[in-house]
Amino acid sequence: MDQLIDAIKEKQNPCIVGLDSNFDDLPLSLQQDNVCEAILAFNKKIIDAVYDIVPAIKIQLAFYEQYQHDGIKVFEQTIIYAKQKKLLVIVDGKRNDVPNTSRIYSTTYLKTYDADYLTVNPYLGTNSILPFIEDCKKYAKGVFILVKTSNESDIQNLETKNGKVYEEVAKKVNEWGKDLIGKYEYSSIGAVVAGDVALRQLMPNTYFLIPGYGAQGTTARDVIPYFNKDGLGAMISSSRAIIYASSDINFAEEARKKAIEMRDDVNRELNVG
Amino acid sequence: MDQLIDAIKEKQNPCIVGLDSNFDDLPLSLQQDNVCEAILAFNKKIIDAVYDIVPAIKIQLAFYEQYQHDGIKVFEQTIIYAKQKKLLVIVDGKRNDVPNTSRIYSTTYLKTYDADYLTVNPYLGTNSILPFIEDCKKYAKGVFILVKTSNESDIQNLETKNGKVYEEVAKKVNEWGKDLIGKYEYSSIGAVVAGDVALRQLMPNTYFLIPGYGAQGTTARDVIPYFNKDGLGAMISSSRAIIYASSDINFAEEARKKAIEMRDDVNRELNVG
Repeated sequence: MDQLIDAIKEKQNPCIVGLDSNFDDLPLSLQQDNVCEAILAFNKKIIDAVYDIVPAIKIQLAFYEQYQHDGIKVFEQTIIYAKQKKLLVIVDGKRNDVPNTSRIYSTTYLKTYDADYLTVNPYLGTNSILPFIEDCKKYAKGVFILVKTSNESDIQNLETKNGKVYEEVAKKVNEWGKDLIGKYEYSSIGAVVAGDVALRQLMPNTYFLIPGYGAQGTTARDVIPYFNKDGLGAMISSSRAIIYASSDINFAEEARKKAIEMRDDVNRELNVG
Repeated sequence: MDQLIDAIKEKQNPCIVGLDSNFDDLPLSLQQDNVCEAILAFNKKIIDAVYDIVPAIKIQLAFYEQYQHDGIKVFEQTIIYAKQKKLLVIVDGKRNDVPNTSRIYSTTYLKTYDADYLTVNPYLGTNSILPFIEDCKKYAKGVFILVKTSNESDIQNLETKNGKVYEEVAKKVNEWGKDLIGKYEYSSIGAVVAGDVALRQLMPNTYFLIPGYGAQGTTARDVIPYFNKDGLGAMISSSRAIIYASSDINFAEEARKKAIEMRDDVNRELNVG
């Protein structure tokens, strides 16, 4: 997580923007073009508007997959454009499979696409995670394992003998990352976390990806307990509340304003805390 | 599952072929072409060789994603070709996300791509599954939820108060499918199952997708207990053992021989049992 933390320190901002780009939600001024050209144009304008203030962007793969191979081309071009602007790229694909196949997913996203981070589903267990751990080491990349997602999941909440399923996953994440601790004392194996601040104790050296700021109702005050005393340990993601801040021709300026507002709100609460 | 069962009855074969098509594993006679053209040519030859004997093919998405948008184009063309040959198509993507996003995955694969079945990861819980259930009803499609995968998963095996996590998922699958029971008494919500024949009791009306026949060491005798007394309830998938049966120029004929051998082995054991 060293690169992410370097970028967070440099931009003085633990907040990132999610490109959940959907044609039907685009500003009307863009909806006249070809679907995939419109989405790429939109992504570039949003990146232009925020690249100097946020450390990373998150690309939710489902939105690109829905437009078939042309959508995947937009996904690819968005990664390239973000990297030209020195943004770190988090691919939100929630991928995983049996080990032979999880290795392919790992190579595809962390090597071929050169994404910096990938979100990964833990249901297939430790041996399905190992290829990702190897690639994090090999390519100096990271993953964020789904621990507790922003929806209420009756599977994650099942009670085991030692706590809930998501708490058991949290302990595994802590284990999986223990040989990959970087200069800031955080491991390359991060966690997607929402709705339980006690998870900080189970994963002291784990970077958290906290989704759902803004549109899903999470506020700056809600996310502060996920940070460690070093002011690090959590990255807050907001998608719709920023990228769809306005549907007017000035949507990019409005997105920038919202991103600055989010940064300042979170930093204010962090300084209070 | 009515269409699948109709096809299984018509072909008298509960076995399907998985197109885990990887350029480096292709017969040398095909490796001289462009990567994606070679894979498409390979898939078409395999489909030509087996379409009259198997009810469905399974396409493992990871293998196509690795070749970026060109790979997705091959995935799309493979679906179209299989449907021309009247094969049912199972997309093995193990997708899922929070409900807003799982809806996109569901629409993408079950509607846009018109796949007949999709494999789905249960970690995000009931509300993430609901969009798939709605689409199964709306488009007369099905899903196979990961219950117990063919690798040993320490997350699936966690002990809850009422059994293992995968047993709790099995009970949910049974619930999720209860309003979608078809003419053969099987629901549209299937399950990926391996390594625990007792799961049959927890999901009496659930169709099972049993992976790993052949290459992963599963035999005809191993899979018989997953079937119900009606001779239905399980579909056996084999990938590498069939598609890479030979690396010679006659690879398609050899794949057909292996597929027939598998069908006959499983049917022989079924008739004994």
